[in-house]
Amino acid sequence: MATAPDTTHATPTAPGWQPRPDSAPLATATLERIDKWWRAANYLSVGQIYLLANPLLATPLDRDDVKPRLLGHWGTTPGLNFLYAHMNRAITERDVDAIYITGPGHGGPGLVANSYLEGTYTETYSDITQDTEGLRRLFRQFSFPGGIPSHVAPETPGSIHEGGELGYALSHAYGAAFDNPDLLVLAVVGDGEAETGPLATSWHSNKFVNPATDGVVLPVLHLNGYKIANPTVLARIGDDELHDLMRGYGHTPYEFVAGFDDEDHVSIHGRYAALLDEVLDEIVAIKARAAAGDTTRPMWPMIIFRTPKGWTCPEIIDGKKAEDSWRAHQVPLASARDTPEHLQVLADWLASYGAQELFDDEGRLDADVAALAPSGKKRMSASPHANGGALLRDLRLPDFRDFAVDVPAPGGSIAESTKVLGQWLTEVIRLNPENFRIFGPDETASNRLQAVFAETDKVWNASLIEGADTDEHLSPSGRVVEMLSEHQCQGWLEGYLLTGRHGLFNCYEAFIHIIDSMLNQHAKWLKVTREIPWRQPIGSLNYLLSSHVWRQDHNGFSHQDPGFIDHVVNKKPEVVRVYLPPDANTLLSTYDHCLRSRDYVNVVVAGKQPAPQFLTMDQAVAHCTRGLGIWEWAGTETDGEEPDVVLACAGDVPTVETLAAADLLRRHVPDLAVRVVNVVDLMRLMDSTEHPHGLSSRDFDGIFTTDKPVIFAYHGYPWLIHRLTYRRTNHGNLHVRGYKEEGTTTTPFDMVMLNDLDRYKLVIDTIDRVPGLAARYAGLRQRMEDKRIEAREYTRTHGEDLPEVADWVWPDAGDLADAGSVRATAATGGDNE
Amino acid sequence: MATAPDTTHATPTAPGWQPRPDSAPLATATLERIDKWWRAANYLSVGQIYLLANPLLATPLDRDDVKPRLLGHWGTTPGLNFLYAHMNRAITERDVDAIYITGPGHGGPGLVANSYLEGTYTETYSDITQDTEGLRRLFRQFSFPGGIPSHVAPETPGSIHEGGELGYALSHAYGAAFDNPDLLVLAVVGDGEAETGPLATSWHSNKFVNPATDGVVLPVLHLNGYKIANPTVLARIGDDELHDLMRGYGHTPYEFVAGFDDEDHVSIHGRYAALLDEVLDEIVAIKARAAAGDTTRPMWPMIIFRTPKGWTCPEIIDGKKAEDSWRAHQVPLASARDTPEHLQVLADWLASYGAQELFDDEGRLDADVAALAPSGKKRMSASPHANGGALLRDLRLPDFRDFAVDVPAPGGSIAESTKVLGQWLTEVIRLNPENFRIFGPDETASNRLQAVFAETDKVWNASLIEGADTDEHLSPSGRVVEMLSEHQCQGWLEGYLLTGRHGLFNCYEAFIHIIDSMLNQHAKWLKVTREIPWRQPIGSLNYLLSSHVWRQDHNGFSHQDPGFIDHVVNKKPEVVRVYLPPDANTLLSTYDHCLRSRDYVNVVVAGKQPAPQFLTMDQAVAHCTRGLGIWEWAGTETDGEEPDVVLACAGDVPTVETLAAADLLRRHVPDLAVRVVNVVDLMRLMDSTEHPHGLSSRDFDGIFTTDKPVIFAYHGYPWLIHRLTYRRTNHGNLHVRGYKEEGTTTTPFDMVMLNDLDRYKLVIDTIDRVPGLAARYAGLRQRMEDKRIEAREYTRTHGEDLPEVADWVWPDAGDLADAGSVRATAATGGDNE
Repeated sequence: MATAPDTTHATPTAPGWQPRPDSAPLATATLERIDKWWRAANYLSVGQIYLLANPLLATPLDRDDVKPRLLGHWGTTPGLNFLYAHMNRAITERDVDAIYITGPGHGGPGLVANSYLEGTYTETYSDITQDTEGLRRLFRQFSFPGGIPSHVAPETPGSIHEGGELGYALSHAYGAAFDNPDLLVLAVVGDGEAETGPLATSWHSNKFVNPATDGVVLPVLHLNGYKIANPTVLARIGDDELHDLMRGYGHTPYEFVAGFDDEDHVSIHGRYAALLDEVLDEIVAIKARAAAGDTTRPMWPMIIFRTPKGWTCPEIIDGKKAEDSWRAHQVPLASARDTPEHLQVLADWLASYGAQELFDDEGRLDADVAALAPSGKKRMSASPHANGGALLRDLRLPDFRDFAVDVPAPGGSIAESTKVLGQWLTEVIRLNPENFRIFGPDETASNRLQAVFAETDKVWNASLIEGADTDEHLSPSGRVVEMLSEHQCQGWLEGYLLTGRHGLFNCYEAFIHIIDSMLNQHAKWLKVTREIPWRQPIGSLNYLLSSHVWRQDHNGFSHQDPGFIDHVVNKKPEVVRVYLPPDANTLLSTYDHCLRSRDYVNVVVAGKQPAPQFLTMDQAVAHCTRGLGIWEWAGTETDGEEPDVVLACAGDVPTVETLAAADLLRRHVPDLAVRVVNVVDLMRLMDSTEHPHGLSSRDFDGIFTTDKPVIFAYHGYPWLIHRLTYRRTNHGNLHVRGYKEEGTTTTPFDMVMLNDLDRYKLVIDTIDRVPGLAARYAGLRQRMEDKRIEAREYTRTHGEDLPEVADWVWPDAGDLADAGSVRATAATGGDNE
Repeated sequence: MATAPDTTHATPTAPGWQPRPDSAPLATATLERIDKWWRAANYLSVGQIYLLANPLLATPLDRDDVKPRLLGHWGTTPGLNFLYAHMNRAITERDVDAIYITGPGHGGPGLVANSYLEGTYTETYSDITQDTEGLRRLFRQFSFPGGIPSHVAPETPGSIHEGGELGYALSHAYGAAFDNPDLLVLAVVGDGEAETGPLATSWHSNKFVNPATDGVVLPVLHLNGYKIANPTVLARIGDDELHDLMRGYGHTPYEFVAGFDDEDHVSIHGRYAALLDEVLDEIVAIKARAAAGDTTRPMWPMIIFRTPKGWTCPEIIDGKKAEDSWRAHQVPLASARDTPEHLQVLADWLASYGAQELFDDEGRLDADVAALAPSGKKRMSASPHANGGALLRDLRLPDFRDFAVDVPAPGGSIAESTKVLGQWLTEVIRLNPENFRIFGPDETASNRLQAVFAETDKVWNASLIEGADTDEHLSPSGRVVEMLSEHQCQGWLEGYLLTGRHGLFNCYEAFIHIIDSMLNQHAKWLKVTREIPWRQPIGSLNYLLSSHVWRQDHNGFSHQDPGFIDHVVNKKPEVVRVYLPPDANTLLSTYDHCLRSRDYVNVVVAGKQPAPQFLTMDQAVAHCTRGLGIWEWAGTETDGEEPDVVLACAGDVPTVETLAAADLLRRHVPDLAVRVVNVVDLMRLMDSTEHPHGLSSRDFDGIFTTDKPVIFAYHGYPWLIHRLTYRRTNHGNLHVRGYKEEGTTTTPFDMVMLNDLDRYKLVIDTIDRVPGLAARYAGLRQRMEDKRIEAREYTRTHGEDLPEVADWVWPDAGDLADAGSVRATAATGGDNE
C-alpha cells in the first residue's frame, strides 16, 4: 500500500524556498563585503596552518612566530571559504535553513575560520575569544598537540561530516535532506573525492528524494584540478564530457570558472552571486512545483566550481608552480622557517589579505564584514541540524510484546525471525512517519522484512511503468530506501542519524564488509563526540545482518563472511554492541533496545529462515536483559552440583545444533550433567573492566565454571570467542566451533558439518573433552561419526538433508503440528542475489 | 623520465584487430546457428537449475526429475548466453583473442552451459561427457551438495571473475587488458551491479589505458531492468540521461533493444550481429590509429543491451509477470514440483527451446551448432588469459642486497624504509617492462616510492596541460597506475594478477579497509583455486601499507586504523601472510620474498618516515628467514640463563620504543636480564598446526620462555597478539601494548604515549611485572611517570617532541653523524591527504 505523499511541510510559503526578494544585481558594497569575508576566512586559514603567535602581524613576522611543524591542508581551503561566504549572503537574503557538507574535509582550517567569523566558534569554545589573544589561540591550537585535528571533525561546529576518508559527501548530504523539507544542504564534492566509487554512484541519490517532503541537496563539484600528486580525472575530460556526465547523473550543470586570470575580485563575486541566485531560484521553482503536487523528478541544478587549487597562495615557490597545482595540496610553503627569503614569502602572502582592513587593533572583526553572517541558528556553523542530537525525538515504539511468537514449549513453534521483526517494524514506521527509515541494498524483502510494505513503499523517483505489476511498492514517499549500493545505504543512514533521526540498515551479512571503512569513521565520530559536551547524543547506527553465513544455499562460499563482528569489536568498547538473538522473540526484544539506544553501533545478526522458537516473550526479555544465561530446560544439571560440561552457543544456527547435541547427550549419556548456555549479547563475554556490558570474573566463572570443558558453538570465526575470553579463569578449557572458511555446499546441515559445527561433532567434542567419557562411550562416538557420514551421503544422493536432521525438534516441544514445516519452507532456500 | 610507448605488439596486422573480412550481412544460416547456440545454452541453463534426471526429456517430465531444492539465478542468464553466442561468431570471423567477464556472476548456469557447448567443460571435467549421461551429470551437479556453486566461480572454465559481490566487472576487465595489446575483454555489467560505487567509478578506467599497448575492454551494460526486488536506476532514467551518462564516462553508446515484442529471433540476431560488427570495426579503427602512433584517448564504444530479465522464460506465472520482471531474478518457477500444472509449465518452458533439434538421441550437440565455437584457445572458456597462472612468467628481480642501507652498527644510520624500497622497485620496473605494475590511490609519492618516477610514469590518458610543470610523470605508458579509488586499484591489480602478471598495491594503512570485502573475495578465490588442479598458481596479491597508524601527524584520528591485519588473518591460513619489517633492509628482503611468491595475500606494513636502521643486509636476510628472532645485541641476557623479561616487538615504531626501553633498562636496572625479540612475520606467532609459518610449541617456548613476563609492543590492536598466541604455554604472562583507538595528537611520541606504547610505559610495565622489581625500583618507576608528564608538557608548549626522545639513538649506534636528522626530516610530518 502506498502512503499518500505528505506535503504538509512544503508549502510555497516555507521560509527559504522563496525567489530572491530583489532581482537587481548585487550592490558593489555587498560584493565587497563578501570579498572581505573571503579574505578574512583565507587569512584565518593560513594563520592556523602557519602561525604560533603574532596573529595579526602587529610586529614583522619572525621565524619564531611560525609553527615548528607545519601540518594541514591549504589547497581546497580558499575554495571552501569562497563558497561559504556566498552562501551566507544567500541565506540571509532568502532566510533559508542550510548546512554545509565539506567533502574535501581536509580543508579543516576553512570551516573553523568561517565558524569563528560567524561567532559560533567563540560561543562554543569560550577561550577562543574575538580578539587578538583569541586569534592567537585559534591559530596555535590547529594541528598542535592538545589542540584540534587538521580536518573538519566532530570538534568543528556545523559539521556532520568528518574529513579523512573521502567519498561520502553526497550520501551524507542526502541523508541529511531526507524528511527535512525546509533544509538546503550545500554539498561540496572534491574532484579527487569524485574519483572514489561511493561518490561516483552517490550522484544518483537524486532518484530517491521527494521534492515535496525532502530537503534539497545542492552539489558543488569543487574542480580545482589536482589531488595529492596528480591531476584529477574530472578536470581533464573536457567540458563536454563533464557536462554530459552531470546530465547523465540527472543534474543541470552550471559551470563557474574563476581565478585563472586577472579578473578583479568584485567582478568574480558578482558573477558567482548571480549564478548562485539563478540556481537557487531554479530550486525554488522546483519546490513550488512540488508543493503544487508535481513531485516528478526534476533535473536538479548543480554547480561546477572550477578554480585554482590553493587559490590566492603564492603563484610560484622556489621556481615551481604552487597556486593551481598539486603542490598546494598540503602546506605549499613548508620551508617557511628555513630561510629569511621563505619567511618573507609567507609574510607577503599573509599581508596580501589586508587583515588590517578586516580586524581592528584589538583583533575584532570589522562590523560590516561580520554583518554578512546570518543570525543565530541560520548560521551554518550553528545549525541544530549539524548537532542532530539536539533535534532528536524519541521514537514512538509499539510494544514489541504484542508481536511475540507463541512458544508453547521450548522448540514448540516455527518462525522466521526477521519476518516477525518486520511486523513490528511496520508499526514503527506507522507511528513515526517522519523520523524513521529503513535502508537496504535491494534486500529488504529478501531479508524477509516485507511486512513493512503493507504500511509503506520503497522511495523511488525515477520513472515507473504505468500499471505494471513489476513496480510494486514504489513511490516518492516510501520509508524504505533501497539502492544496490551498501555505501549509499550506510552514507544515507549516517546522514539521517547525524541530523537527529533514527533508522536501520538491513544487509546480507557477508557484504556489510563493503562499508567496513565507513563504520570505522562513524565509530570514531561517536567516540569523539561522546567527549564533546555540546554534541548531543544521536540515534544509534543499527544493523540487521541477515542472509547470514550459515544459510547461503543459493549462493555459497562467496556470500559467507561473518567477520564484520570481528571488525566492529576492535572499535571503542563504549560505542559498540553485538547481538546474536537465537529466535524471533529475542530478536524483537533486542531490536526494541537498539532503537531506544543512543550513540552506539548496534550489530544484530539474525536468520531469516524458518527455525524453531525457544523462548516465550517473558523469557526472551529476561534472557536479553541478562545478555547471556543458562537454559536450564535444555540441560541436565542438578541444583547444588557443578555440571560436567558446558555447551555454550551464540547465534541462531549454533543454538539449534547445540540443543540437538544436548538432546543426543541426554538420550545417550544420561548420567552426564550438561549445562546449556546461550549468549545473545556477545560483549557479555568480555571482562567488566574492558567493556561496559562485560561480566565480572565471578559471574563468568559461575556460569562457565572454573574447570569444566566448555564446548562453544559460535556463529562466526571461532578465534573471536578466544579473543573475548582469553583472560577468563576457565579459558584453557574453552573449545570453540565456528566458521572456518569452508563453505561450498548447498544444504543447511551439510554446511554446518563442513565447518564441524554440527550436533554430532559437538557430541564428539563432549566425549573427547569430558574426562572419563572417551573409553565408556567409544561406541557412541563412532555412531556419531557414522551419522555424519550418513548425513553427507544422503545429501549427495537426495540433494536434501537427512530427514531426521531436518525434522529434528526439541523433545519437549510438545505437539508441534508444524514440525515438518522447517524443512518444507526451507526447501526453496533463501532469496539471495 | 617518460619511457617511450612500446608499440611493438600493436601492429595493424595483429590478429583480432582486423575489420570484418566480409562486409556483407550475415547469412540466414549463420543467424540460425547463433540462435540454436543461444537456445542450447538457455536449455542447458534451465536444465541446470531444475533437472535432476531425464535431461533431454526422453520421457515426459516427471516430478522426480525436478530437483528437490531449486537454487540458482535465471534472470540474467539468457542475456549472458545471447552475448556469448554472438561473441563466438565474431571471434571466429576475426580471429580475435577474447575473454568474457561476467559482472552478473550469479548467471553461473549460463557460463557453464557455454563452456559445455564449447567442449571445454568436458575437457576440464572428464566425467561431464558430451552425451545424455554427461548432460544428466551437468544438470545434477549444479548447486547440489558435492557439486558446483551456483555462481560463476573458480570452478568455471574461462572465468577470472567470481560471482558473488557485485561491482568489479570493469576493474577486473581493465586489469586483464593492461599490457595485453591483442586481448579483447567483453565485460558484461549488470544494471544492478551498475548501482554500486566501485562500478560507477570504474567506467573512468578508460583514462588509464594505452590504445597501443593495452588490450580493449568492450563494456556491455546488461540493462534487463530489474534487481532482486526492484527496478534498476539506469533502466529508469530514460535514454537521454543514460546516453549522456555513458558519453560523460568517455564512451560512445550503442543501444540494442530486443525481446519486448514478437520480432523473430533471426531478425533479432541479425540486428545484434550488425551492431557488434559496427562496434568491433570501430575498435579496429582505434587500434589502427594507435598503431600508427596516435594514442590520444578515443571515445571507446560500449553497448547498452536492453532486453527482458529472464528472457524466454514463461511470460506469466500464477497470474504475475515473470519474464521481464524481478520475479525472474532467481528461480522464476519455484513451485515446479508443487502441482502438475506447475510441472507442465516447466515442461513447456523446456520444450520451447526445441532441444531435439539441438542434441541428437545420444545427447550430442548438433555439429552445425557446435561449429559456432571458436577453436582451441580462442574459445573464451579455454583462454589461457583466464587461467593466468598458465601464462605467468617469473619476475626478473634485481638483487635486493645491492640496495641495502649501510648499517655500521645497530641504530647506526637513518633511512626512510619505503623510499629505499622504491629504489629497488625502480629496477624491478626496468627489468619487467610488460608484466609488473604498481597501483595506488594517488599515494605512491606520498608513500615515498617516488624513485620509480626516474624510470617510469603514471599512466594517464586524459588530457595534459602542455608544458605545465604540474603534469609531471604522466604518460599513457606509465607503469604506475593511480586513481583516487582504492576499489579501482584493488580491482585492476586483481585483474592483472588473475591474467598472469605481477604487481603491488601501495596504500595508506587506514584506508585499505575500503577494500576489505574485495580482499575477502580474492582470498576465497585463491583458497578454492588451490584445490583445483587445472588452475595454475598466480602472482600473489601484495600490499604495501604505509602512512600507518603511528605517524598521522597531518591527519590524526580519522586516518588511524591498523585493523586490516585482523581482517586478513581471518582468511584461510594457507593463503595469508603478514609482515612488519622493522627497517629498510628487512623491508627489502621481505618484498623480494613477496614478489617471488604465488597464490598468497601478502600484507606488508612499513613506515615512510626517517627512522633508525638496525640490521645489516646479512642480518636482515637471516632475521626475515627466521621470521622472528632474538636481537642479542639489544638484550642483556647471558648464555646458559633464562632472561628475567622478554621485550617483544612487531612493527617499526614499536621496535624503536622497545629498543629505547631496553636502553633505559640497561642503564637503570643493570642486573636485569632482558631479552629483546623482534617479529617480522606475524604468522610465526601462530601454532605450527594452525599456520604453515607457525612456530612449534618448543620453538615458541624457547624464545618467549614458559614463565617469564613478556612485554609485547605491537603495531596494531593488541588483542590480535592474544588471538594468535592464546594456546601458548606462556600466554598467561603475555602483556601486549598496541593501538587502542586513542589518537588525536600530532607529534610521534605524544601519539605512542596516548596509546601507552611508549618506552617509559614499557619500562614501567617491566617493573610492574618482573617479580621483585616493584619495591626496588619504585623511584625509577616514578621517574618514568614523570618523564611521560614532562614529554607531554613539552609538546603542549613547543609543538614538538622532547629532544631527548626525538634524538634518541641506540647507545651502540656509534658516531651517528645523522642522528639529528630523524627529528629534522620528520619535522614537516608526512605527505598525507
